[in-house]
Amino acid sequence: MTGTAERRLRLNLFIYPGGHHEAAWRYHGSRPDRLLDIGLYQELARRAEAATLDAVFLADGPSLPDNVRYASRFRLEPFTWLAAVAAVTSRIGLIATASTTYTEPYNLARLFASLDHLSRGRAGWNIVTTGAPQAAGNFGLDAHPVHAERYDRAREFVDVVTKLWDSWEDEALIADQASGVFADTDRIHPIDHEGRHLRVRGPLNTPRTPQGRPVYVQAGSSEDGRGFAARYAEAVFTAHQTLGSARDFYADLKRRAAALGRDPDRVLVLPGISPFIGSTEAEARALRDEFNELTQPEYSLQLLERLLGVRFDVADLDRPVPREAIDTGGERGASSRFQLIVDVIERERPTLRQLLHRLAGARGHWVVAGTPEQVADRIEEWFTGGAADGFNVMPPWLSGGFDVFADEVVPILRRRGLFRTEYTGTTLRDHYGLPRPRSTFAGRRAPLSTTAAPAP
Amino acid sequence: MTGTAERRLRLNLFIYPGGHHEAAWRYHGSRPDRLLDIGLYQELARRAEAATLDAVFLADGPSLPDNVRYASRFRLEPFTWLAAVAAVTSRIGLIATASTTYTEPYNLARLFASLDHLSRGRAGWNIVTTGAPQAAGNFGLDAHPVHAERYDRAREFVDVVTKLWDSWEDEALIADQASGVFADTDRIHPIDHEGRHLRVRGPLNTPRTPQGRPVYVQAGSSEDGRGFAARYAEAVFTAHQTLGSARDFYADLKRRAAALGRDPDRVLVLPGISPFIGSTEAEARALRDEFNELTQPEYSLQLLERLLGVRFDVADLDRPVPREAIDTGGERGASSRFQLIVDVIERERPTLRQLLHRLAGARGHWVVAGTPEQVADRIEEWFTGGAADGFNVMPPWLSGGFDVFADEVVPILRRRGLFRTEYTGTTLRDHYGLPRPRSTFAGRRAPLSTTAAPAP
Repeated sequence: MTGTAERRLRLNLFIYPGGHHEAAWRYHGSRPDRLLDIGLYQELARRAEAATLDAVFLADGPSLPDNVRYASRFRLEPFTWLAAVAAVTSRIGLIATASTTYTEPYNLARLFASLDHLSRGRAGWNIVTTGAPQAAGNFGLDAHPVHAERYDRAREFVDVVTKLWDSWEDEALIADQASGVFADTDRIHPIDHEGRHLRVRGPLNTPRTPQGRPVYVQAGSSEDGRGFAARYAEAVFTAHQTLGSARDFYADLKRRAAALGRDPDRVLVLPGISPFIGSTEAEARALRDEFNELTQPEYSLQLLERLLGVRFDVADLDRPVPREAIDTGGERGASSRFQLIVDVIERERPTLRQLLHRLAGARGHWVVAGTPEQVADRIEEWFTGGAADGFNVMPPWLSGGFDVFADEVVPILRRRGLFRTEYTGTTLRDHYGLPRPRSTFAGRRAPLSTTAAPAP
Repeated sequence: MTGTAERRLRLNLFIYPGGHHEAAWRYHGSRPDRLLDIGLYQELARRAEAATLDAVFLADGPSLPDNVRYASRFRLEPFTWLAAVAAVTSRIGLIATASTTYTEPYNLARLFASLDHLSRGRAGWNIVTTGAPQAAGNFGLDAHPVHAERYDRAREFVDVVTKLWDSWEDEALIADQASGVFADTDRIHPIDHEGRHLRVRGPLNTPRTPQGRPVYVQAGSSEDGRGFAARYAEAVFTAHQTLGSARDFYADLKRRAAALGRDPDRVLVLPGISPFIGSTEAEARALRDEFNELTQPEYSLQLLERLLGVRFDVADLDRPVPREAIDTGGERGASSRFQLIVDVIERERPTLRQLLHRLAGARGHWVVAGTPEQVADRIEEWFTGGAADGFNVMPPWLSGGFDVFADEVVPILRRRGLFRTEYTGTTLRDHYGLPRPRSTFAGRRAPLSTTAAPAP
């Protein structure tokens, strides 16, 4: 939390098809015909790289989101999409979301190892347990595992894939043409994991990657999520509507990490920010209002109802949301996004329409409307005020909504000495100031049993 | 099988780290330092595209192959690798191997849909059930499922992912900014699959892809494999050492497909060919011998022992392989590769060393050593002689072993009118002359239940 001379903002571009405002695809400046065109995302990533951002980031979930009738809520598969982005960039980090609940650890470990190899060390893993209950039906489960159970598997899952990524020591690859030794099998280790949720023998079928492991990112801010983040995460994505809330979270997470013996500076806290930018504040607010006018109450209401487990009536759009209607107990109450909405209702007593507009901006993330100077001011305020090590930039629409941030806000942040003017390293770990981990197997002389005894 | 004026060879470049000869990585013309460098594979794919090949193809398996001590037998993860190749090419097909035994159908369907979207219709799926028993331990299984059981799951798996790829009809994506309708949810269908091996609800979380479905490729030539190919495959990869064997297979597969009511011309049979090319036949043979000299008996013997389930003695390298030692019964006998080796032993009565060299070329595939004209002659002989619709080209080493094929053999095939001089389409289905399938759901008016009833 101390502001040393070297402390610099970390900035990711969070890419969402169409943009982060729920009506983005309807805005005249967006291109709904290009939502499945990899070229659009490659151009975005190149612009983000030209602006020396740390990373691009893709969310994900293994099911069709609700209400695709009204919003561009299909999914871009992150591994393939980011591999194609890697091919046209050379520095920017590539953070893929992947679920510990609905993937096999061996397959996931391979995908990340490959992304790290082909990008020469730019992969990050946003570790999620999947919130959408409808995913269960796509994987033969009768019900989505409950929150605590998902996190229990997630912890074991991360331990397993960590061992897989470490299973080839860095020195295992020899490739000596003269002697004919391709790999030092004494430095390739089965992991022989047998746990409550998973049994994985290993080793991985690829040499260790440039970063050793992808950067571990985590995005849940629930109690389980914080505990998980404090233990595993090197960067934490989080949603806050106020400086106070962000500050509390920041302090809490750093404290938890320190309590586990970790260096708090190596657990970066990165809230989301969705900026509407105008040449005047009034112009920025008008732009935000224009987006809100494009929302469709059928869509927004249904989303809110699912989140809160409450039914609303369209006739009540302009009445205050009854605080009492929200039942904060049970499984729903464990979700940090649920809690954020309850906080907004308690703090602002909004009408239903106001609440819907508030959430339309970026699904509960911080929406800022202002001039480039004002947006930079808010970023600096959070960054120097103990609330953030940087931000996930969530443009309301793509790609214009990012262009104006890159063209207008980034130069101000650079002038103030808050953000890099050029990359000083090549990997995502370099950008984030994180060390490259040694293999946990380094130095252990356990031979790979299956190849230890060649035929006589 | 009839040779019409339009009948043209299909040629894929089968990419294997280092090359297909087991000692390729030791050859002075190969670059073991670049085996994990995506740039090497991107350059190869661009050269293959410049030579108007149909596709590049990556093998795969979810475990570390045996004997990595002596050979470059790690794995390149196909989806990420081919996505990065897609980014630097525009026409060539991209065929990824993926296992029906060790993946979740929802995840696999997403990866292929994404590869097809981002490549604008160039994805193919080499459907395998995974032969390596050590994969089981990486996925929590006590034992690798037996051959028949794997194929039983494979059939159900293909049915499931086909339905997932069809679950968005082509017209489902509307994206009409004015009306606010993003998708026609009447044209997005849950698949509600409940089978012996799999339960998958669907729909997929992405719109239908340029090709509708990836091209279905299959590579097993066992009895189970042939039945599977006849029913599902649009292209079949196969290994034959003689024209006679290839002809028998070709006729059998076309007959089986016709018996199931399919058009045999839409089941392409593509044997592997691994060409050593020289300016004279003697030079080509000398090159092949040079590679064989680089093999390591410890490695080759162990591989053969695993395949055949027999122990050999290094002292017997120069004695004939005893035919009687090979037990052709049981699970092993079901493998077409096993049968191929038995045939070589019966036909040629090779010494153990000769057999090892024969298999070192391309793991049992057809190895040809000759001048460019001679190689083109053999290709033409098989193509016009009812043995092949084209070939999987398996260069002994990469990338030089492909360059000489592209530079010397392809022009001859073009001059003879056997191979295209330019692409006439943009998708892999175009190149292979295969139709784009309609969604099986087209016209059914089953609404997507979860979004059919928006809140009032």
